[in-house]
Amino acid sequence: MTSEIKFTPNTAGVTDPKGFFANGVSADIRRKGNDRLDTGIVFSKTPCAAVGVFTKNRVKAAPVLQCEGVLNSGGSVYGIVANSGNANACTGAQGKVDAKTMGDQAASACGVEAGTFLVCSTGRIGDLLPMDRISPAIAKSGAGIVNGDVDGESFSNCILTSDTKKKTCTATFEVDGKLVSIAGSAKGAGMIQPNMATMLAFITTDIAADRTVLKQLLSETVKHTFNAITVDGDMSTNDTVLVLANGESGVTLDDACLETFKEALFLICDNLADKIVADGERITKVVELLITGADNEEGAENIARAIGNSLLVKTSWFGNDPNWGRLMDALGYADSEFDPDKIDISYGEIPALVSGTPIPENKPKWKQVVSERRFTIHINMHAGESSYRLRASDLTEGYVDFNKSE
Amino acid sequence: MTSEIKFTPNTAGVTDPKGFFANGVSADIRRKGNDRLDTGIVFSKTPCAAVGVFTKNRVKAAPVLQCEGVLNSGGSVYGIVANSGNANACTGAQGKVDAKTMGDQAASACGVEAGTFLVCSTGRIGDLLPMDRISPAIAKSGAGIVNGDVDGESFSNCILTSDTKKKTCTATFEVDGKLVSIAGSAKGAGMIQPNMATMLAFITTDIAADRTVLKQLLSETVKHTFNAITVDGDMSTNDTVLVLANGESGVTLDDACLETFKEALFLICDNLADKIVADGERITKVVELLITGADNEEGAENIARAIGNSLLVKTSWFGNDPNWGRLMDALGYADSEFDPDKIDISYGEIPALVSGTPIPENKPKWKQVVSERRFTIHINMHAGESSYRLRASDLTEGYVDFNKSE
Repeated sequence: MTSEIKFTPNTAGVTDPKGFFANGVSADIRRKGNDRLDTGIVFSKTPCAAVGVFTKNRVKAAPVLQCEGVLNSGGSVYGIVANSGNANACTGAQGKVDAKTMGDQAASACGVEAGTFLVCSTGRIGDLLPMDRISPAIAKSGAGIVNGDVDGESFSNCILTSDTKKKTCTATFEVDGKLVSIAGSAKGAGMIQPNMATMLAFITTDIAADRTVLKQLLSETVKHTFNAITVDGDMSTNDTVLVLANGESGVTLDDACLETFKEALFLICDNLADKIVADGERITKVVELLITGADNEEGAENIARAIGNSLLVKTSWFGNDPNWGRLMDALGYADSEFDPDKIDISYGEIPALVSGTPIPENKPKWKQVVSERRFTIHINMHAGESSYRLRASDLTEGYVDFNKSE
Repeated sequence: MTSEIKFTPNTAGVTDPKGFFANGVSADIRRKGNDRLDTGIVFSKTPCAAVGVFTKNRVKAAPVLQCEGVLNSGGSVYGIVANSGNANACTGAQGKVDAKTMGDQAASACGVEAGTFLVCSTGRIGDLLPMDRISPAIAKSGAGIVNGDVDGESFSNCILTSDTKKKTCTATFEVDGKLVSIAGSAKGAGMIQPNMATMLAFITTDIAADRTVLKQLLSETVKHTFNAITVDGDMSTNDTVLVLANGESGVTLDDACLETFKEALFLICDNLADKIVADGERITKVVELLITGADNEEGAENIARAIGNSLLVKTSWFGNDPNWGRLMDALGYADSEFDPDKIDISYGEIPALVSGTPIPENKPKWKQVVSERRFTIHINMHAGESSYRLRASDLTEGYVDFNKSE
């Protein structure tokens, strides 16, 4: 018997499932002379089934390559070591050595063998990691975990960069009276677009799972959650989503609970993805673009991304201006087959264009929709049966100001 | 004997070649109650060989469809009628009627038969043209031309939208003592990216040319000029480049002067394209991206466009910040094959990255380059023999402010 799912946003995150320990400490990676948390460990005493989805950027950061190496080796995984403030990307041979060193030091600090830790970094590209400060911080974090000094919140905070708040959630359900938990901690902020971005998401669960099944579930889920968001259209060198499953709930992922687990994983990923868009750098709007009736799924996605990444569309949202002409312009250069004279566009429930013809008398109502912080634009292409949903943000003067210098 | 080319920027534009007449008048299309020039005609008493290159946007404005119809009919072309302030795009069946009416009224006003005028509109998408005001303006413009009231400058001004200045230039050369002129008037400003954008360019020449040859020359030239610029990555519904050749110089485009004419056409298009980027909405930088050593030409172009359209790259230019990490990130998601560890990046002549390894001691020098209004970034991919040059702008708070409302 599998129960309903209980979903809770804004939890401690990765430490909620049984047998997971985590904390975050300060290595002062940004050299600000303060104790901002920037380094942390997630650890399970029981070895985990671990899977990951990574950036498709050809310029992959050293920690991404390190993770892929550990996962491809097929050996046991006990945890994750992560840092913010420096992406360890475009750092050449030394960067690869540093990423491996981070993993080995974390393993050693937690009393497990080398090669059993995944490694993630996020932050500025092109600088070597300050290993002289990171190494003692990893030792301190690991010692804390061994001594029971566990704090999911501090871990969830140590991975943040320009995020304004931590991003966590937890889902639970029961199988034959046994509690299964799945929880996540993520960071987002800039470089947010398809195939993830400067985003890291760590998901832990105490279910016992087969790696192949878990990888398949994660890939499907990421496609419609973390990969279906855009803030600025940039795809980063470091994007990573990891799932660690340690089995301590005593429940095994099998046919009896597969659909429930899949739904819980979707809820976790969808909530974290939504939090990433909503906390995009200096954004003021979260817009759900719902494309239906497209010629095929790729066409639907191309249309959504052309609109969601158009500077002219995004600036008009910022100005509370429902400029549907800019939507039409953007979808016109998306790679998809359709007849412009058949398109319907609605803002919320209010039709702005029906069969390619504007409904100007509705303008006061659709202007009202666009003035909200969150709204949906539904575009029916009337060209087929395929659909795609993309969550996008506006583009603000604040974004430009924030990103104009290092 | 063909002479050297004499090139002059900032001329009267389309009226420079022999036998071309033009002017601009006001229809108050924007309903501001002022006499801003917004409607105009270019006319040749001698029928012209006419060719055009148009937006590849699937949502094509009515005047684009009208131009394609006139050109495909293969009949004589005597001129162009154009307006700014309203793009006549997404205007359904009435928009198509209005575009045809504009052409027929211009032909009638100049005393030639219907179906011999090309039609261009630029401005806001989704509103019907105010034909009650445009029709008398076309009649007035045509009457002026018939009466010898010719003013290339007023025509060059009437096509502008958010441009801050007119964009014109003229090239001349002699063939066996006969003067050949080629001149252009263009408008740009927003929605500037591949396959043109809200840009119109009108080129006139008094050479006699075969349409097929002229079309081939124009297509090749547009590829490396108007299509090799980006301001905001948006491709418009109305982009159009037209060439009218009336033969009044007495010189025929043949093998003897083909290379010279081709070079003159390139100079005209390149100068107008450069002016369009340099006058992009609220930009402060013009950056020439020179990609060399790419796997193939498409790969080189993909890399240049990924960089030139990256919000994070463009905002860093605005901030005088030579953040080469953001260049590496952007080229990493471009569709092209390469090894990140082989890439060289220079700002002007100053190497920032050699074989994937940063040269931090050069940072003060390359920061100086990025603080200039115009600079070049050269990226050698060391992956093949192909190259591409893209002119891009920065992204400023002013752009966002300017475009946030109608």
